[in-house]
Amino acid sequence: MSANTMGTLDLGQRYARRAEIIGKSIYDHPPGVTVLSSGLAYPPCLPDVVREASVAASDFISESMQYGPLMGLPDLREAIVDFVKEDGVEIGVDNVLVTYGAKNALDLACRVYLEPGDRMIVANPSYMTALQIMRSHGVNFLGISQDDEGMNTDELEENLKRLRANGERMPKLLFDIPDFHNPTGITMSLARRQRLIELAKEYNFIILEDDPYRRIRFEGEAIPPLKALDDAGVVVSLGTVSKILAPGLRLGWAIGDAGIIRRMAMQKADGGCNPMAQRIVVDLMRSNKMQYHIDEVTAEMRVHRDAMMDAFAKYLPDAKIRRPNGGYFLWAELPEGSDAERVAELGIEHGVEVSTGRLCFAEAGPTNFLRMAYSFVSPELITEGIKNLGAAYTQYKSQA
Amino acid sequence: MSANTMGTLDLGQRYARRAEIIGKSIYDHPPGVTVLSSGLAYPPCLPDVVREASVAASDFISESMQYGPLMGLPDLREAIVDFVKEDGVEIGVDNVLVTYGAKNALDLACRVYLEPGDRMIVANPSYMTALQIMRSHGVNFLGISQDDEGMNTDELEENLKRLRANGERMPKLLFDIPDFHNPTGITMSLARRQRLIELAKEYNFIILEDDPYRRIRFEGEAIPPLKALDDAGVVVSLGTVSKILAPGLRLGWAIGDAGIIRRMAMQKADGGCNPMAQRIVVDLMRSNKMQYHIDEVTAEMRVHRDAMMDAFAKYLPDAKIRRPNGGYFLWAELPEGSDAERVAELGIEHGVEVSTGRLCFAEAGPTNFLRMAYSFVSPELITEGIKNLGAAYTQYKSQA
Repeated sequence: MSANTMGTLDLGQRYARRAEIIGKSIYDHPPGVTVLSSGLAYPPCLPDVVREASVAASDFISESMQYGPLMGLPDLREAIVDFVKEDGVEIGVDNVLVTYGAKNALDLACRVYLEPGDRMIVANPSYMTALQIMRSHGVNFLGISQDDEGMNTDELEENLKRLRANGERMPKLLFDIPDFHNPTGITMSLARRQRLIELAKEYNFIILEDDPYRRIRFEGEAIPPLKALDDAGVVVSLGTVSKILAPGLRLGWAIGDAGIIRRMAMQKADGGCNPMAQRIVVDLMRSNKMQYHIDEVTAEMRVHRDAMMDAFAKYLPDAKIRRPNGGYFLWAELPEGSDAERVAELGIEHGVEVSTGRLCFAEAGPTNFLRMAYSFVSPELITEGIKNLGAAYTQYKSQA
Repeated sequence: MSANTMGTLDLGQRYARRAEIIGKSIYDHPPGVTVLSSGLAYPPCLPDVVREASVAASDFISESMQYGPLMGLPDLREAIVDFVKEDGVEIGVDNVLVTYGAKNALDLACRVYLEPGDRMIVANPSYMTALQIMRSHGVNFLGISQDDEGMNTDELEENLKRLRANGERMPKLLFDIPDFHNPTGITMSLARRQRLIELAKEYNFIILEDDPYRRIRFEGEAIPPLKALDDAGVVVSLGTVSKILAPGLRLGWAIGDAGIIRRMAMQKADGGCNPMAQRIVVDLMRSNKMQYHIDEVTAEMRVHRDAMMDAFAKYLPDAKIRRPNGGYFLWAELPEGSDAERVAELGIEHGVEVSTGRLCFAEAGPTNFLRMAYSFVSPELITEGIKNLGAAYTQYKSQA
């Protein structure tokens, strides 16, 4: 290309507002560091799908190599119906849309509901990539705090009342992760779940229930998902095989009112999700392989969590940690006023990558949190990584 | 769900404008009909990828089952660089983004550039699904007619001059399919291609060059793609493996200025495209299998095209047909004033599905066109399908 000609153009000026957001992917990492920053799968637990892939590519060749049905393979939609039934969610196939993971499902829901300037309710903090997706739709956030029972529904109600009283634009959507919340690890109580659904009905918004970690439970009794408590079609549940099987399969789903689901399908700019991956997932869900995998990952992740908790106690005792009973993440609070972003930068110099909690807040939030993922590296490397993070923190304190 | 409670909600009223578009997928078909409506792959030509899938799931398990890099596998991006080099497109890996097919790439480009109310240039007629994707971004279309040389650049220039003179919002993007246009089958001349790039530079818009059919050429000499003529970074080329390998792999790419490509990547609401499918495509592109497949599909599609041309001459001679020199589609003009939608409806009753050309016009267009796809069914079924379409047309005429 001629640099000269480039100079006459002013293309950058013409980007849409959402394209001003340029960051890095949470799945790209600098070489040689211990990755404690993102919820990647633990490599020794990745499922062997050679047999399933071979079957998909031979017996099902005319399905696997062709465009797929818009809503997903009927067999997969049925398998998903059966899977969520175990959680008390009673639905039919018309309530299921197959997507490229829960993130894609979230984006489709945003496309169906959001105009720029619309309002959306999120927990403060919340899942960083979800916030990025929602931001790309030009939303205004209504951030609600959490305590040990999950999103504070009293605070939410007060805000909704105030907005209504002021005649302001009411929120259309709420996004939350009731089980093993990312990043905080909190599980929402039954009472809060019920209250949330009442509020959705009263104030006419849709709850997007992001549900990737539910089956990766270390302790405690399961509480019904919001979708199982939904008597009014106000909950759209976002699921994924990333944690119960493998992220590389890049498949998930949305479950909800058939009219909403159909509209979400129409926003898919594709010729159906990869049918070969769908066929592989059908086979894994229909065999005992998936449950075996869930049990294996859960047992392994419990050890990882313990390793990280122990290492924090030993090498970074200044951090306050909330112990998660499941999932992949741990939320670490450094002493008030700490600059976690600077600690994370120093961490890279010490060979460990962590995420600053700042990215988890919809608007300006506290600066002293780290979001830790214990999923990807071995317990030994977790220990070493936190030791190195402790060294980075010590260096930070000595410089601050 | 309680129907009673549902009645108190008014959720439908809150959908975004784009969600008012509810149609059917062009890849879903009524059972038992001969499908001449959409560009599905010909089943006997689908590639055998059993070996590649097994290798991807075993030797590459830690890549295939994990989240993929945001931009795509480096090996695949390199293979794409080499692939387009054969067309004279000289780029580096930073200019390549792996996507879920060309449709996904188009959507990402729209996300980077378009705000609701922005203007976009399209050929009249154009690819129906692309129009649907662009519409979901709330664009206003500037439709430009085509002749045997492709998009009428004089008409485009007149329109651009008029808009500029009137101080109106200038188009940000142009979408076209220069090789074996869908639906018209027209290939744009070299002079028009050069003029189009000059206009993009002069009027500061980006050309989205949709390029799925280029290698499926029956006759004639190849003309360089717009991207090969682009000396200013004004062309973003959208590619796919759907026609050169298999639609079920659901992979494609965008090629363009590195800054645009990076912004498109940031709009991907996913953890990278399916890495197993990417690994399979790398293997196929790096072996002789892809070229074998292209040669096989091209030879087969030539026979299909001829079968459809012959059948039209025999069974529906009232239709004017433009003979395509490549690609999957044929554009059939019924006598002026004909209601092609009604003919298509009667076609279903006669066991054949065709697409009305109406869907290919950005705004209200002529009603007397059919978009025919000869890709999916055998030459014998094409003949029978057109015979049945002829019967449907005869019935239409007798009723009209």
